[in-house]
Amino acid sequence: MQKTSYEGMQCPIARSLERVGEWWSMLILRETLFGFTRFYELEENLGIAPNMLSRRLNALVEAGMLEKCAYTTRPIRYEYKPTDRARDFADVLLALLSFGNRHFAPEGKSVTVIHDETGIEAVPVMVDARTGIPLASPAYRWVAGPLASQSTRERYATDRRLGSSGLA
Amino acid sequence: MQKTSYEGMQCPIARSLERVGEWWSMLILRETLFGFTRFYELEENLGIAPNMLSRRLNALVEAGMLEKCAYTTRPIRYEYKPTDRARDFADVLLALLSFGNRHFAPEGKSVTVIHDETGIEAVPVMVDARTGIPLASPAYRWVAGPLASQSTRERYATDRRLGSSGLA
Repeated sequence: MQKTSYEGMQCPIARSLERVGEWWSMLILRETLFGFTRFYELEENLGIAPNMLSRRLNALVEAGMLEKCAYTTRPIRYEYKPTDRARDFADVLLALLSFGNRHFAPEGKSVTVIHDETGIEAVPVMVDARTGIPLASPAYRWVAGPLASQSTRERYATDRRLGSSGLA
Repeated sequence: MQKTSYEGMQCPIARSLERVGEWWSMLILRETLFGFTRFYELEENLGIAPNMLSRRLNALVEAGMLEKCAYTTRPIRYEYKPTDRARDFADVLLALLSFGNRHFAPEGKSVTVIHDETGIEAVPVMVDARTGIPLASPAYRWVAGPLASQSTRERYATDRRLGSSGLA
């Protein structure tokens, strides 16, 4: 669709969205990470049209997120196993879960994450593993990396941080 | 588009994607959080068609993520200020940034997040603020919340966790 328009962007967010930014891709990843890897399971659980499901699965295979394997041969039937790259996508799903619970569950939470031993509900937050400080705080800013293009450098020459109230 | 198909889902991930799960919406949020709030700035920075930009902006206003304000009246021109809800979306963007850098920047990182005082690059991870433990670890599992429907309850009656290698 509009994919080409941000193909040239250096932003790693755009690059992630290029691979998994479609309506269904993230929900398919969620399902496969929970063990629903067969075509019919995905079709059933998501209520997605088979041709759309095929397209999204192929794109995720191409992006190195799923591995396509036959689990039976007569007739031939496929399952789509999540790769390590897909498993590494968990934090995005957790961030979306947390955001959805905070803002779009007015009647109360229907799905939540708990600490297994204590049973206490988790309070999800994105931190710097080195310091433990939340990344969406003024202590952190976004900068151009070593491989940045000229336009990316110019963009981040100005102070860019998500946590500063003065910015937005 | 396929929006209606998961409208009925209780999953908070699906609910978030319903509001911001379109190609452009997350990139628009990124721009506005960085202070690019005017229509022409968004059009320029994203290389997005104006009619598509209008549609996405209206959807984000409707979702309570952006506030539409006129910044000049002759001619009338609008900007779109991020709300607190949009600011609360930062962790999703950070998770996507981190994922993109790890997997889709083979030539090296072009954008990264650093600790302002030390200049050291952050290592983004989603943790439980209560314990500091990564949420994508076997210590955490997903469960049906108090408001879960019967089908959601059945779905999470089985042990569901992203961090268990035995699952997927």
